[in-house]
Amino acid sequence: MIPRAILTSIVERALEEDLGGGDPTTEATVDEGATAIGRAVAKAEIIVCGGEVFRAVFAAVDPTLELSVETAEGDRAVRGDILWTVRGSARAILMGERTALNFVQRLSGIATLARRYVDALPPGSRTRVTDTRKTTPGLRVLERYAVRTGGASNHRDTLSSAVLIKDNHIVAAGGIGEALHRARRLAPHTSKIEIEVESLEALDEALDAGADIVMLDNFAPGAIEEAVKRAAGRALVEVSGNVTLDRLPELSRSGVNVVSVGALTHSAPALDLSLRLEAAGA
Amino acid sequence: MIPRAILTSIVERALEEDLGGGDPTTEATVDEGATAIGRAVAKAEIIVCGGEVFRAVFAAVDPTLELSVETAEGDRAVRGDILWTVRGSARAILMGERTALNFVQRLSGIATLARRYVDALPPGSRTRVTDTRKTTPGLRVLERYAVRTGGASNHRDTLSSAVLIKDNHIVAAGGIGEALHRARRLAPHTSKIEIEVESLEALDEALDAGADIVMLDNFAPGAIEEAVKRAAGRALVEVSGNVTLDRLPELSRSGVNVVSVGALTHSAPALDLSLRLEAAGA
Amino acid sequence: MIPRAILTSIVERALEEDLGGGDPTTEATVDEGATAIGRAVAKAEIIVCGGEVFRAVFAAVDPTLELSVETAEGDRAVRGDILWTVRGSARAILMGERTALNFVQRLSGIATLARRYVDALPPGSRTRVTDTRKTTPGLRVLERYAVRTGGASNHRDTLSSAVLIKDNHIVAAGGIGEALHRARRLAPHTSKIEIEVESLEALDEALDAGADIVMLDNFAPGAIEEAVKRAAGRALVEVSGNVTLDRLPELSRSGVNVVSVGALTHSAPALDLSLRLEAAGA
Amino acid sequence: MIPRAILTSIVERALEEDLGGGDPTTEATVDEGATAIGRAVAKAEIIVCGGEVFRAVFAAVDPTLELSVETAEGDRAVRGDILWTVRGSARAILMGERTALNFVQRLSGIATLARRYVDALPPGSRTRVTDTRKTTPGLRVLERYAVRTGGASNHRDTLSSAVLIKDNHIVAAGGIGEALHRARRLAPHTSKIEIEVESLEALDEALDAGADIVMLDNFAPGAIEEAVKRAAGRALVEVSGNVTLDRLPELSRSGVNVVSVGALTHSAPALDLSLRLEAAGA
Amino acid sequence: MIPRAILTSIVERALEEDLGGGDPTTEATVDEGATAIGRAVAKAEIIVCGGEVFRAVFAAVDPTLELSVETAEGDRAVRGDILWTVRGSARAILMGERTALNFVQRLSGIATLARRYVDALPPGSRTRVTDTRKTTPGLRVLERYAVRTGGASNHRDTLSSAVLIKDNHIVAAGGIGEALHRARRLAPHTSKIEIEVESLEALDEALDAGADIVMLDNFAPGAIEEAVKRAAGRALVEVSGNVTLDRLPELSRSGVNVVSVGALTHSAPALDLSLRLEAAGA
Amino acid sequence: MIPRAILTSIVERALEEDLGGGDPTTEATVDEGATAIGRAVAKAEIIVCGGEVFRAVFAAVDPTLELSVETAEGDRAVRGDILWTVRGSARAILMGERTALNFVQRLSGIATLARRYVDALPPGSRTRVTDTRKTTPGLRVLERYAVRTGGASNHRDTLSSAVLIKDNHIVAAGGIGEALHRARRLAPHTSKIEIEVESLEALDEALDAGADIVMLDNFAPGAIEEAVKRAAGRALVEVSGNVTLDRLPELSRSGVNVVSVGALTHSAPALDLSLRLEAAGA
Repeated sequence: MIPRAILTSIVERALEEDLGGGDPTTEATVDEGATAIGRAVAKAEIIVCGGEVFRAVFAAVDPTLELSVETAEGDRAVRGDILWTVRGSARAILMGERTALNFVQRLSGIATLARRYVDALPPGSRTRVTDTRKTTPGLRVLERYAVRTGGASNHRDTLSSAVLIKDNHIVAAGGIGEALHRARRLAPHTSKIEIEVESLEALDEALDAGADIVMLDNFAPGAIEEAVKRAAGRALVEVSGNVTLDRLPELSRSGVNVVSVGALTHSAPALDLSLRLEAAGA
Repeated sequence: MIPRAILTSIVERALEEDLGGGDPTTEATVDEGATAIGRAVAKAEIIVCGGEVFRAVFAAVDPTLELSVETAEGDRAVRGDILWTVRGSARAILMGERTALNFVQRLSGIATLARRYVDALPPGSRTRVTDTRKTTPGLRVLERYAVRTGGASNHRDTLSSAVLIKDNHIVAAGGIGEALHRARRLAPHTSKIEIEVESLEALDEALDAGADIVMLDNFAPGAIEEAVKRAAGRALVEVSGNVTLDRLPELSRSGVNVVSVGALTHSAPALDLSLRLEAAGA
Repeated sequence: MIPRAILTSIVERALEEDLGGGDPTTEATVDEGATAIGRAVAKAEIIVCGGEVFRAVFAAVDPTLELSVETAEGDRAVRGDILWTVRGSARAILMGERTALNFVQRLSGIATLARRYVDALPPGSRTRVTDTRKTTPGLRVLERYAVRTGGASNHRDTLSSAVLIKDNHIVAAGGIGEALHRARRLAPHTSKIEIEVESLEALDEALDAGADIVMLDNFAPGAIEEAVKRAAGRALVEVSGNVTLDRLPELSRSGVNVVSVGALTHSAPALDLSLRLEAAGA
Repeated sequence: MIPRAILTSIVERALEEDLGGGDPTTEATVDEGATAIGRAVAKAEIIVCGGEVFRAVFAAVDPTLELSVETAEGDRAVRGDILWTVRGSARAILMGERTALNFVQRLSGIATLARRYVDALPPGSRTRVTDTRKTTPGLRVLERYAVRTGGASNHRDTLSSAVLIKDNHIVAAGGIGEALHRARRLAPHTSKIEIEVESLEALDEALDAGADIVMLDNFAPGAIEEAVKRAAGRALVEVSGNVTLDRLPELSRSGVNVVSVGALTHSAPALDLSLRLEAAGA
Repeated sequence: MIPRAILTSIVERALEEDLGGGDPTTEATVDEGATAIGRAVAKAEIIVCGGEVFRAVFAAVDPTLELSVETAEGDRAVRGDILWTVRGSARAILMGERTALNFVQRLSGIATLARRYVDALPPGSRTRVTDTRKTTPGLRVLERYAVRTGGASNHRDTLSSAVLIKDNHIVAAGGIGEALHRARRLAPHTSKIEIEVESLEALDEALDAGADIVMLDNFAPGAIEEAVKRAAGRALVEVSGNVTLDRLPELSRSGVNVVSVGALTHSAPALDLSLRLEAAGA
Repeated sequence: MIPRAILTSIVERALEEDLGGGDPTTEATVDEGATAIGRAVAKAEIIVCGGEVFRAVFAAVDPTLELSVETAEGDRAVRGDILWTVRGSARAILMGERTALNFVQRLSGIATLARRYVDALPPGSRTRVTDTRKTTPGLRVLERYAVRTGGASNHRDTLSSAVLIKDNHIVAAGGIGEALHRARRLAPHTSKIEIEVESLEALDEALDAGADIVMLDNFAPGAIEEAVKRAAGRALVEVSGNVTLDRLPELSRSGVNVVSVGALTHSAPALDLSLRLEAAGA
């Protein structure tokens, strides 16, 4: 559930951008009193995501429009399925159409890609697929929601949600132990401390210094298995960076706890959805 | 050139989202006075786009950071090329890193895809590849800029920039002629009037009623050639919808004036760029 | 129709400005439960404009207020006519009064002036009177709406809606032909290209280079007629700059397509409207 | 002096409105490195107002532009006088031109009208001409500044700056005495209490109840003189509503302290200013 | 009454801050359809303040929540009293809880402290206790409302609501008389002019120059009495700065008109309120 | 380090509130060209906090003002010590004075109170004192910074930064084990999971279900000691709610890891700072 005010603020910015000067095409061709029904239709197999955003866009154009959800969030829809319906002023529906679709085609795209990753895990796998902070500027809260809707998990929300120590931080602090020590002292006790390691030696150092999560950077498959063994019961193991679908089964079998995939949000192709309009009279 | 205030407002929203609560990792591990040099590096062959946004992000974190452009906008860079450099407070560079990269990986992704489309046209082609309004909510002005940087062209900016009459508008107005007549009367004289047509008969009706641009919806290749002939000297011909790279040469040879491609903005995969940091002392 | 979110954002800014610190006068003198009816009354002959803005202001002060439209947008009202009615909390009505009137007195002023210009055209004239971008900062979408409500037309909305090449651009580009060529290449195919010309020679050059619209700068009446002849069938002819009402018939008879009038928005005097309150009990 | 952040926020909103989608005309016709000098020139006799806003607009487009003031705020300029100069990127100057002029043509219009009212007072007059809250939504702080620049005075800033009891408040409170009593109790001790009166009897009641200022509503000239006598030493006398220039001398001679004129801000015609550009090289 | 739009804008900013990334705790543990009743309960004796803000927070999270006021604004509540009730989605109630309480614990804290000051005045006292501009950045309109709710009064709202000349202004202007003269000339006639004085001589000078209010800075008790005598019938006397509760009776007996107390807003401790939730089914 | 854009946005909102209508007192009494030096002076013993905010306020009023830090953040200052200095336009300094002080008096108040709590811990104590989410709406990032500056620690930043399961969540989920299980599944792997427990039995259940942190609600001193023993090596122990300074030593000796104190932010009294101005010439 995304709180209304959060949603509205994102949606209004988008409408301002497309509709800030009005819509002369619609104003010219559609009579003021005309009403219509618009049905958002899937044009391929998708995981449905974005109903509340769809609703919020149309409500921001005209609060008297009526919305209904025809396919639940996270369900799989196939070509031709109706996802959501909007009824009321034909002008208002046409004015909000593009902005509404721009949101939901992206969110459904992310949810659908997330589902593909999750489905690529072996049955019973306990490995978690997560997003990263590589989200679209301004849309993070929506994109993280889409990732969850697709069945994957979220990584930390913002820079202040958890500590993630990367190579530059380690160098600046003067070593793995010192970086972890400093972070533990400054960060909230509610934050886990994650650290990126580049070798098994660095891993050991991180585990000894009490890291909660270790992120393996560019480890060979064998080294990953060894890392998982060493970390067992001491820290979670995360693999990140350019993980393709076909590597997931192996990573899962290695016992990796988390695979984080930037592509979930930065490169999910938008899905093609269309809004079919039917006149409902004037 | 994107005016500074426009850029700043987009960039600040993005920083608020990621950095609004501060960055405890960096605050803990990097000393306050430490300085560094960060170099944005291409990790694949790309068309470079986004230098001004990169600059604006870091300036919004800390106005004393110094930026320099190492590869010009629109140039092709290969793996390992340095695109931009930022110098100054190591803390500030690390805090702005992710937000800056989130922008430029998307913009370079769009520019690179746009270039691929343009390069797929036959030599000497006069066909124009354009974007659509299927842009990321909140980032349209940047994404349209990236399309131009890649060498492709822009379609109308907002709903109020030009008239584009689609099937629903035609039905609502009571026909092609009436829709065009009404639009001509209401729209600014500076707006071109474009109309979507689904058959050669509809095309003739649109041409007779004075459409400036006709958008062919789902025409067979032969029908496209015929449409181009009929429209010659009377209206521009645009083809839209799911145009893949390999169809471009044929469309160009048919004489189509414009091919609009939603994928340029809604499905360009982000390109992988990284920021390499080097300590510069304290 | 102005989308709700666009309207609300403008209206809230205005309320913040006047009412951000509350209204001690009303809070002191009017009991919390008191209700009233407020009637907006014309104090002169006017073209009515702004009902939706009037509604939006009061809704932003107190969403339980009830609004009704007594005179339709664009209709002519005479002194004493009731335009709109607002019912509900007397405090809320008094708090929103000035802001609501500040909007509608300006919009009705513009609509009324626009109507005077349109009425000054000879019967059957096909000349179009338009506004310019000389609008009040922050209120453009409303003022353009008022111009249309008065029966006149809009010029381009923003700098990105169409191309308008002025003398400085011509000089910078190195001539009329080069400026038009460059603009055609960069601008969206949906944008018309307008260019300002200062002589018949420049006009010919612009027509030869394919300008869609020519704006005649300071042409003598005879030269205007000649220009219209030369442009016939090739480009629209626009006259701009200090056009007074009494010149309109002659310009229309010359065959000028468009007369753009900055005064419609930058110098329309506000019309005097008042809100008559009647207590409705407590 | 208008604090920078206040100014910037108003100016950025205006730029967003006109320039949010960029300026393809300028981008096409003017080379990136070209520089120019722009001179704002008066096209009639005016009281100059708005230099800081002019500066803020261009700074928001491009902070490297250099501005200089050629005619001081509040000075009289004649046709051809240069008011302000801007130097730097030709593109940036052209992009900001219209927005900058839209502000200063309005502010100079207000200042010039204010000066005409002040100049219409007899020599040595102690009557003060003020504005009202009938300002343009979103621009109040600027318009009040323009009124002062023209030599006139400001009325209360917002609803919370002072108490002004009008007829509806009196009726709601149950009479003049009760309204004044209530207002005195609730309002800050720093607020003056003004009340509108419709007769000499009402005036007496208001004076007895301790009003600080009385606003005479629709009094005949003789009654005004009498009112001034009765109020002398007890309250300031303000006359409001449709006061034309030619009535000012008589009102001043009657001893009226304040004449408030809504037209100063709601109906001042914009003054024609232009920006003359001269190329400065590339 | 705080206008809705003013309230909403403050409340949305606060929600963005706490809830901008969603609430995984609630999303995980509470089913989507679950409903609940939340009751805000006093945990000590308080003056109740903030019902409208409480309502606005929950409405911004979910507009379908139902709110009811159980104890009126300004009433005294004791430990265990229910102040307000919210019913509806259990998730929405839990998501808004902290933000709602953060507002009302502060506002009730201020109202309660204000009441203590007012109650410390002798019976029948005509001395007024007021706040100052030492309010929390961003919350002034709410905190001033809380001061009134507690029974105390407001000082000037903003820098532009009234004139208050302090020592630095006096020095800059070249003396008390000159400062008052200049302020009278520039400030609106609706503004009272207050001036800070440091001695009885300065007081006389201020009274002679027509100050409306004199603020006594650091006067000994005897000097205060003398100052009140000299100012009687000429100006209001305000005492400011570190006034503790036990000094109020004496100041009141001295005839001081106004005692302004910064602590009302800058140091009122938050009161402990809690929200008791009861499941209402799913 | 608070990123500039984050700071500026908070500061501008505050200036808008106080200075949005200008400052007639200063404009009247201080000449435009006058310059001054302002020194922020401690009026009691304090822990200094807020230099960057102080700087940002004045920069937003007038970017040409020069600021210097005289006492470092987190240092102890005594009555009379100069904390920061601002030089430049006397008008600008006076206009920003109150807003700047309103920020720093609050932040220094929080830092000073935080230091008192930390100093109350026994020497060598490993117990951590933290804030809570009971912060001032709109100022959280600043108040958390002040807590750290005082030497205490932060709790979770926002609702999405970590999981904190309270009694209502436990009831909704159907028990401690189920609530923890659900939270672990949904929350990011980077989030710690904290849970509130009301008895030793509940504590055991929480520990068995893998809670990372247990918050003891209203435990007797003996029970706290027992809880610490049971949790040792399994989870952190936090005590929250109405912890006064004198209980800290005992809690520390019990081995409690974290004591969270809402009063640090919601009830820290503002400290009295003043700005001493000295004219620097004109």
